[in-house]
Amino acid sequence: MPPLADLWGMDNQNNIDNAEGGDATKPSGFLDRTLKNLKTAWRGIAGSAYDADKASSRPDLPEGDLEQLRDQMRACLETRGGEVSARGRAAALGHVYLALDTSGRERFLRLLAHDFDVDEDSVDAAMAELRKATNKESRHNAQVVLKKALVAPRINLLTQFNALPDGVKFLVDMRSEILALKSNEPAMQGLEHDLRDILKSWFDVDFLELRRITWDNASAALLEKLIAYEAVHAIDGWDDLKNRLDSDRRCFAYFHPRMPDEPLIFVEVALVNGLADSIQVLLDENVPVLDPHTADTAIFYSISNAQKGLAGISFGNFLIKRVAESLSSEFKGLKTFATLSPMPGFMKWLTRTLAAEDSDLLSNGEAKALSAVARDGDTPRQTLKLLLENRSWPEDPTVSEALRIPLLRLCADYLVNEKGRNMRALDPVAHFHLTNGARMEKLHWRGDLSSRGVKNAAGMMINYLYDLSRVEANHETYTSTGEVAASPDVRALLKG
Amino acid sequence: MPPLADLWGMDNQNNIDNAEGGDATKPSGFLDRTLKNLKTAWRGIAGSAYDADKASSRPDLPEGDLEQLRDQMRACLETRGGEVSARGRAAALGHVYLALDTSGRERFLRLLAHDFDVDEDSVDAAMAELRKATNKESRHNAQVVLKKALVAPRINLLTQFNALPDGVKFLVDMRSEILALKSNEPAMQGLEHDLRDILKSWFDVDFLELRRITWDNASAALLEKLIAYEAVHAIDGWDDLKNRLDSDRRCFAYFHPRMPDEPLIFVEVALVNGLADSIQVLLDENVPVLDPHTADTAIFYSISNAQKGLAGISFGNFLIKRVAESLSSEFKGLKTFATLSPMPGFMKWLTRTLAAEDSDLLSNGEAKALSAVARDGDTPRQTLKLLLENRSWPEDPTVSEALRIPLLRLCADYLVNEKGRNMRALDPVAHFHLTNGARMEKLHWRGDLSSRGVKNAAGMMINYLYDLSRVEANHETYTSTGEVAASPDVRALLKG
Amino acid sequence: MPPLADLWGMDNQNNIDNAEGGDATKPSGFLDRTLKNLKTAWRGIAGSAYDADKASSRPDLPEGDLEQLRDQMRACLETRGGEVSARGRAAALGHVYLALDTSGRERFLRLLAHDFDVDEDSVDAAMAELRKATNKESRHNAQVVLKKALVAPRINLLTQFNALPDGVKFLVDMRSEILALKSNEPAMQGLEHDLRDILKSWFDVDFLELRRITWDNASAALLEKLIAYEAVHAIDGWDDLKNRLDSDRRCFAYFHPRMPDEPLIFVEVALVNGLADSIQVLLDENVPVLDPHTADTAIFYSISNAQKGLAGISFGNFLIKRVAESLSSEFKGLKTFATLSPMPGFMKWLTRTLAAEDSDLLSNGEAKALSAVARDGDTPRQTLKLLLENRSWPEDPTVSEALRIPLLRLCADYLVNEKGRNMRALDPVAHFHLTNGARMEKLHWRGDLSSRGVKNAAGMMINYLYDLSRVEANHETYTSTGEVAASPDVRALLKG
Amino acid sequence: MPPLADLWGMDNQNNIDNAEGGDATKPSGFLDRTLKNLKTAWRGIAGSAYDADKASSRPDLPEGDLEQLRDQMRACLETRGGEVSARGRAAALGHVYLALDTSGRERFLRLLAHDFDVDEDSVDAAMAELRKATNKESRHNAQVVLKKALVAPRINLLTQFNALPDGVKFLVDMRSEILALKSNEPAMQGLEHDLRDILKSWFDVDFLELRRITWDNASAALLEKLIAYEAVHAIDGWDDLKNRLDSDRRCFAYFHPRMPDEPLIFVEVALVNGLADSIQVLLDENVPVLDPHTADTAIFYSISNAQKGLAGISFGNFLIKRVAESLSSEFKGLKTFATLSPMPGFMKWLTRTLAAEDSDLLSNGEAKALSAVARDGDTPRQTLKLLLENRSWPEDPTVSEALRIPLLRLCADYLVNEKGRNMRALDPVAHFHLTNGARMEKLHWRGDLSSRGVKNAAGMMINYLYDLSRVEANHETYTSTGEVAASPDVRALLKG
Repeated sequence: MPPLADLWGMDNQNNIDNAEGGDATKPSGFLDRTLKNLKTAWRGIAGSAYDADKASSRPDLPEGDLEQLRDQMRACLETRGGEVSARGRAAALGHVYLALDTSGRERFLRLLAHDFDVDEDSVDAAMAELRKATNKESRHNAQVVLKKALVAPRINLLTQFNALPDGVKFLVDMRSEILALKSNEPAMQGLEHDLRDILKSWFDVDFLELRRITWDNASAALLEKLIAYEAVHAIDGWDDLKNRLDSDRRCFAYFHPRMPDEPLIFVEVALVNGLADSIQVLLDENVPVLDPHTADTAIFYSISNAQKGLAGISFGNFLIKRVAESLSSEFKGLKTFATLSPMPGFMKWLTRTLAAEDSDLLSNGEAKALSAVARDGDTPRQTLKLLLENRSWPEDPTVSEALRIPLLRLCADYLVNEKGRNMRALDPVAHFHLTNGARMEKLHWRGDLSSRGVKNAAGMMINYLYDLSRVEANHETYTSTGEVAASPDVRALLKG
Repeated sequence: MPPLADLWGMDNQNNIDNAEGGDATKPSGFLDRTLKNLKTAWRGIAGSAYDADKASSRPDLPEGDLEQLRDQMRACLETRGGEVSARGRAAALGHVYLALDTSGRERFLRLLAHDFDVDEDSVDAAMAELRKATNKESRHNAQVVLKKALVAPRINLLTQFNALPDGVKFLVDMRSEILALKSNEPAMQGLEHDLRDILKSWFDVDFLELRRITWDNASAALLEKLIAYEAVHAIDGWDDLKNRLDSDRRCFAYFHPRMPDEPLIFVEVALVNGLADSIQVLLDENVPVLDPHTADTAIFYSISNAQKGLAGISFGNFLIKRVAESLSSEFKGLKTFATLSPMPGFMKWLTRTLAAEDSDLLSNGEAKALSAVARDGDTPRQTLKLLLENRSWPEDPTVSEALRIPLLRLCADYLVNEKGRNMRALDPVAHFHLTNGARMEKLHWRGDLSSRGVKNAAGMMINYLYDLSRVEANHETYTSTGEVAASPDVRALLKG
Repeated sequence: MPPLADLWGMDNQNNIDNAEGGDATKPSGFLDRTLKNLKTAWRGIAGSAYDADKASSRPDLPEGDLEQLRDQMRACLETRGGEVSARGRAAALGHVYLALDTSGRERFLRLLAHDFDVDEDSVDAAMAELRKATNKESRHNAQVVLKKALVAPRINLLTQFNALPDGVKFLVDMRSEILALKSNEPAMQGLEHDLRDILKSWFDVDFLELRRITWDNASAALLEKLIAYEAVHAIDGWDDLKNRLDSDRRCFAYFHPRMPDEPLIFVEVALVNGLADSIQVLLDENVPVLDPHTADTAIFYSISNAQKGLAGISFGNFLIKRVAESLSSEFKGLKTFATLSPMPGFMKWLTRTLAAEDSDLLSNGEAKALSAVARDGDTPRQTLKLLLENRSWPEDPTVSEALRIPLLRLCADYLVNEKGRNMRALDPVAHFHLTNGARMEKLHWRGDLSSRGVKNAAGMMINYLYDLSRVEANHETYTSTGEVAASPDVRALLKG
Repeated sequence: MPPLADLWGMDNQNNIDNAEGGDATKPSGFLDRTLKNLKTAWRGIAGSAYDADKASSRPDLPEGDLEQLRDQMRACLETRGGEVSARGRAAALGHVYLALDTSGRERFLRLLAHDFDVDEDSVDAAMAELRKATNKESRHNAQVVLKKALVAPRINLLTQFNALPDGVKFLVDMRSEILALKSNEPAMQGLEHDLRDILKSWFDVDFLELRRITWDNASAALLEKLIAYEAVHAIDGWDDLKNRLDSDRRCFAYFHPRMPDEPLIFVEVALVNGLADSIQVLLDENVPVLDPHTADTAIFYSISNAQKGLAGISFGNFLIKRVAESLSSEFKGLKTFATLSPMPGFMKWLTRTLAAEDSDLLSNGEAKALSAVARDGDTPRQTLKLLLENRSWPEDPTVSEALRIPLLRLCADYLVNEKGRNMRALDPVAHFHLTNGARMEKLHWRGDLSSRGVKNAAGMMINYLYDLSRVEANHETYTSTGEVAASPDVRALLKG
């Protein structure tokens, strides 16, 4: 699964500063505090090796400070003074990092990446040894040595940062910052991969706790994060949030035991009757509440990754299925589990397609539908292009009606037939749900009339159906052949 | 740190069966239940691939079952049916393992070790690629590929076992069972190393919880485990245990969040005045209780590893220092932190030494002391050997007095000067505390008159002093030069 | 202590409906649900005595239903079918009550009050017996009988309502509704007193839990209640609330173990330097945050009773002192504990006083100060009256300055010298703090320029100082002689 | 319900000393500690009124100390220095009490009883007022005054003791000590009743928590108390206890939130097939464990009150029914809920009956059965008497068989037909279960062959059946008419 954060355009601002006390929201006085913290952190570095006079303690980490940092990092790796001391020193280094500014942090990371990278000579020597090994045992031993040589020393230091009070969150955020640098340097990528390896082990899905989040059990601090992290349908304040946690709504998230107030990924569910067809109706606070015990359908209408630093370490598949299990044991009446999902790539694809010269794009019927609102002389393709350029077209019923048939068909084609690399569905959300074994169930015209919905998918949405008795087979088919599971309803929309 | 379990002769019986409900203690009916569990487990293996007719479900895992097992393991590694299904299947495989008998388990482990080992061809290919790589980036990429090739596929399956309700304990116990096999096969050692790598990451010391264990807060089930796991001075029933948790005693243990009722390592502490000199006095239930707020010394008189499967993953150093911190913040009067420790290797060394022909072994003064109880014609060395052969010598005051001077000196020499490989102290307990930065403080004649104490160390014990202001320096000196920190008191005992 | 709710004009809407799921805020569908609940509740009444055909199940509790109710209440009191059954039946009666409308509830209460009141004949008989008793023992026995006769049977039924899931909250709210009826009937007052007696025992202060409420630890549901219950300085949404829980702010509340999410009384504290003199400054979200470890003063700026049904059962005294203890052990720098309090009765008193013909009211100096802004011909008293009638006077600096001296003096006189019954200070907030042993410390001109502050106290506020070394003596003096503790600063303001 | 403690001969040693740290079990040093505590407690009494020079601080509370105590008690009642101070002072008084010896405590209690008793004059005045009252309102007001006059002032002080850390337990134990004094003084009885009234309110059954106690969840300190408090079938060490908590056994207890580690009452249950007929078989550790999911019957084989100070405040009825509910929801196969109970009064009654001259006592058949083992010339009655005098009769199969028929019949008659006052069953255990609505189901010959069982009930036991569909009706019949519910099986044993 690709990171949902990227899929659904998540752009939350959760970084290390937020994690360290939420001061980022209070600009006044923040820099002062950073400076004070930085000095304290430098002082906190254990051992007499630290030279207070030499340290400038500037947040951009000037050369002299970098030098001392390097020495302290080495002390950590050599467990100078013993393991207990080394952990203490690593925590102090972590505090220095937290108190640095952007360029200081980058220099800190670059130091870690380059100065504590894999030693090429050891690798070469170990390879030579392995090539010489003749019997099973000597080969095995040589492999052990080679494997060890391929591990960068910095990985031990990264682990030692766990001594920080919020050590796990620290590493998650550090990775998020490295990813944001989008560096091409192999050493930086190596550092990022090392972090990913550590986090992958620590965030094994069976260490995570699935919790339901309610208005009654969640702290304001946690709820505030939902508002900030929601990546699909923005939460418009506390009343909107309360409505999404209300009696016929559910919100579930995965948590790590060492980050108890930080959701890793969360999903919002509506308990309804029948497949939901409009996100605006679903989120309307004035719609009467349903007794959830009378609902027959659970609609997963939003799923957001909350930690950029966990990109590539996915729990979405588990989350949806565990939540479905939990709901179906609580509400015996639930028969259907489905999403109401966006198609973030449709319009981008359509624009590209319309630009290409493909005379076959529209059928006669579609052309005819468009002709009702066409400018004289325009081809159907030109008409379509023109109409879509004006983003307010949904407000004009005639235009909207004219667009309905061609767009639904084009969208179905896009979803079912358009492929990226490795036979993957081109649409990233489609690829995610298909990989989970879901089926494309129903396309909805005017399903999301928000400006984002119109911009990305011409206002359409889709239900992916999670039929637990079929997800395994669907998954196997899709991953091995690329064939897409789609309902007759969706297939009926495809070009003849 | 070498595993304390081995150091102090721990031989507890905690294995997977215990972990799975304590039924091991109830022989009647146990096998039946195992068979029932085994069938249930086989049935639980997901997917239609499992052939109920073919499976014999015998606890020794006959060939046909092995075949099916191999196929299911492959399905796990290929995440057939998706990740959620794979985890479920892995849990079912774990249940099969739990229901097997000793030879069935060995076959299961051997399958894991051999059939899912590193692929030699991929390693060779990746090495060839790396050798060809010329620039930094291509080298980096080739290293990534090589590193991956060196990872045995089984490591993914091992991780998936975490889906078991007690998945972490499952892996710890699996490793303990592999270690018990003492196999020389590289593949089995590879499997054991893979487990160690996983456990090392999951048992990072900063994930562990340090808890004080008291009569009031610990369940009988947990306390029962202390009785079973105590490896140094056996706990003689519930009254002895209660005495060790009493007002002037403390017991602390590390726990993993996913094994909340399983101590990983625990230490017992007595709050006293002055350095304790006798373990029998310390454990005497009739000695009046001290108001701990008047104590000036904390004596760590027993430290036991409780999980054989965590051998080589050490927390003892952290445990002692964290407990010392915790105690010193609770009791402001504590000035001294020290152990009362055995010297498990002394008598073995002395016997070897006495057997060798070394005329210089005893000084004149020592020879004279021994002469008082010597048989006519025996050399001092012969006298010493003879006296020690009768294990009841401590009951004879004259003999005991005659032995005092020579044995204290010999013991001091053994501790301070005898070295194993890499300049390590020969005595394993000494090596552990010296590595932690402790100092040999005081030797006690007649410190442990239990039969084990007499057998292993001629009834002597020693205090290791943890002076927190010196542990770093001591650690550095010892680990870099092998030089042993010893008090003037101990040094005064050494041969001139 | 009189109920703070009345003192500070609390008028929150927390009633039983809120407690039962917060549906009161959703008018649509609410009545339906009530009707459904009512029918369910009637069905739930145990025993065959209940006649489903006869029960109309109307929310206004018509005569026939009342009849059945009476019978069920009797069954409870006779513990018909045993105690377990009686509790179950009482719970069902409680559910009926919850589903009734206002007039239904009143009839329910009236039934309880009148039909299960003290039996006058038993009282008379018991008194006769007591008068006849001659020796100590017979008198004692007769007293026991008489005391029992004076207990209304309904008190047992009230206790049995504890079987409801939120039984304690049920009784608290029931009392709140009885108080709201302001009935003069002795039987209704008796019912209210019975409830008060039960609640007084159950809400013994040492059963309560003092908890700090923070943005991180409190649920949105609880925080919402703070917003609703705040009785002194209204909380203007979630941002204002967050600001009041921020790093240099504290909020503490008492909770009952059986009402874990319902604050009973809560206090808001600001950690500042020096005595705070303006509530608007204190609540300003834009004022920079202070590091609380540098604060020397804790200002209790708001204290609100949250449960009307606990009127007359006071914890305010305990709350302030326990919070002061808690804060002073957390922040060693705190030297001063004081309130910033309103004087809710000042303007009412002043208006009355100005209306009376008392030529001595203003001193010459005060008259002179007023003359600067007087209309021609007006006496100082007339001037004062006139100026105050225009509530926007604080916006005119000249008028404000003219009023300063006379009003501060009048206010000091009002606070220190005006008495109600039993030598109590006339101002209810003053009486509360003086009873607690606090001292009037400093009056602040323009301390609360909100429209309420201007209306009630001409914009003035006052600090009451809690000097823990003097509160006992102050309390004794005030409660025994009525003498008011006031600082030299306040005394200096008094009329010569 | 009468106190089970008395019914079943409970004689546990739980008193205040135990509650205060379990030091009572360590005689050495205990008195010293008491003296030290006593001095500390006296010093802790708030306010300058306490004269350290005058206080002897002797544990028997000599006259001078008594005088000071009286003054401090008055200060509490007058809330001298305010409520917070009064609570603090009351806690200090409580600590004095805890440090007193038996005679000191008695003097303390006597002081409370006599000096703070109801004021007779106020009672007389209030009665006079009430007699004069003519209308409803004045009568009501006069009643309020009279009721208040009948409340002894000491009740406020007793409540204030709740300020002690274990205040609730303190009052429970204080009442237990008063009961142990068996005083006839009205004032002491009044004090005891005041305590009962407070505790009855605080221990309302719906405040209590029903918890299952297991080997895994209960602390050793709690389990130790079960061993100490078990009043029916003594627990013979930790192995016996573990066996009673094992997989086919259950133990449940009620707890008060402020006494979280003190069981109030607990019941032990065996999950079996069919009605259990022998307590020795039930407790045999060597009997194979049953899979509880295959059990059809839950046998309540022991129920013990754990707090003597709660005598007369009963939860036994609730406990049995709540446990039955809990078990039947966990184990769907359970069809029958019954006890296996002793008949503690049978042999006492039989001895009395045999001593009386009643020629009709034995039927012909019974006489014949006895004749087989009669001494020449003895009447059947003499034979019966003689045989029972030798307590080892159960070991002689012939004698045992001869006794079977007459004793079963006599026992059935005793249980069903013998009445105490108010038509209550003479046997106290029978009365308890009949009041709960249970039915006498089956008598078991040789059901309890322990020496106690033979002594009290000639080795017989009985099952009381809890048929939840009938308990209400049974209860009503028994409490209104005294008629006993008995199975046809039991009725068949009765004398023709």
